Amino acid sequence: MKTIGILGGLGPESTIAYYAHITRRYYELRSDYAYPEILIHSFNFKEFIEAAYELPGCVRTAIVNLHRAGADFVIAACNSVHVVYEEVSRDIPIPWISIMAAAGEEIRKSGLKKVGLLGTVFTMDNTFYQRGLRDYGIEAIIPEPDERKIVNRIIYGELVKAEVNDRSRRAVLEVVEELTRRGAEGIVLGCTELPFLIGQDDAAVPVFDATAIHAEKALELALA
Amino acid sequence: MKTIGILGGLGPESTIAYYAHITRRYYELRSDYAYPEILIHSFNFKEFIEAAYELPGCVRTAIVNLHRAGADFVIAACNSVHVVYEEVSRDIPIPWISIMAAAGEEIRKSGLKKVGLLGTVFTMDNTFYQRGLRDYGIEAIIPEPDERKIVNRIIYGELVKAEVNDRSRRAVLEVVEELTRRGAEGIVLGCTELPFLIGQDDAAVPVFDATAIHAEKALELALA
Repeated sequence: MKTIGILGGLGPESTIAYYAHITRRYYELRSDYAYPEILIHSFNFKEFIEAAYELPGCVRTAIVNLHRAGADFVIAACNSVHVVYEEVSRDIPIPWISIMAAAGEEIRKSGLKKVGLLGTVFTMDNTFYQRGLRDYGIEAIIPEPDERKIVNRIIYGELVKAEVNDRSRRAVLEVVEELTRRGAEGIVLGCTELPFLIGQDDAAVPVFDATAIHAEKALELALA
Repeated sequence: MKTIGILGGLGPESTIAYYAHITRRYYELRSDYAYPEILIHSFNFKEFIEAAYELPGCVRTAIVNLHRAGADFVIAACNSVHVVYEEVSRDIPIPWISIMAAAGEEIRKSGLKKVGLLGTVFTMDNTFYQRGLRDYGIEAIIPEPDERKIVNRIIYGELVKAEVNDRSRRAVLEVVEELTRRGAEGIVLGCTELPFLIGQDDAAVPVFDATAIHAEKALELALA
């Protein structure tokens, strides 16, 4: 069994979602308590927000420390921090399994070619996520600028504090409808907090919860 | 701000409880995202259960690694593993803040002298927890053998898997009543999973949620 390293705290609620997913799912599969060992480095979230997640040195150091403490591979419990993925992953002692790779693999399996991407303004405006999905033959379209702002405000103003409300759910679902009108055959929840707000039951097209898919992939690798 | 080290995974749900308590409480206090850094080593729970938590070498190694990765002090998100506390804490590079010290300090503040201790059979049958509280001038009494088995079965059979049911709640509350009849002026929830089942509203005497008190203490030390 391999030891999972997790880069966390970006924000804390999504770290809980990953850790809970991995450990609860392990028990569902095996019905015993021999959980894989998990090492978590939970960062100061404010420093990352202020640096627009461009802290490749901090991320690399954390990965090196997780490796020294026994981690066999690492995942980041946050989409936005993947902005440094291409740079950092070239120069670390253990593999960093990206969320784009995990989601891309899953979307490819479903046969869809074009998806709508929801996340922070940061994740939507930058192209690292879209590039990551393109490696799997998937085109990702993003909401219009005004809609991106709405989604972003809900994530940072409410979801990172575990606040969930119906008005915000309706607002995000309107954005989803607009993306499907523009040709999206599915929706990627490209922010670890969005699954607190919407799920498959809320939408007419397939919803890919990248967090759950990513956590599942980490468990699969730990048990391989 | 200090970096918190957490020995976790014993079981995973209590690790979530600690991490959630520390990060949510931080936000309540400061209303910003500058959370303290937190490093977690989540163990294979089965190995600890099978060794009756007597794995001082594993615990020491994990603490040394957490220290190397930047932790300034460490807490264990599990009561039972404190069986190795006296042995391990003598020979580690950073302080290990025990749950008995955190709970003892809080009970002493309340002026109570005699409390009932609930936890796993392991925590109740051994004397490390009672010794830890005695350092704060508090006498801790434990349930009768049959009652200890009931509490233990509920913890391992249900609570570690996040299963909570009313029948088990009533069973534990009967044990609490018996302890108060025997002179307990308060109850210590000496197992990180018990707060999922009972709280202050369920009991006639003060209930000390050692997990919450301990997590609060860790945050206080990180912010000091």
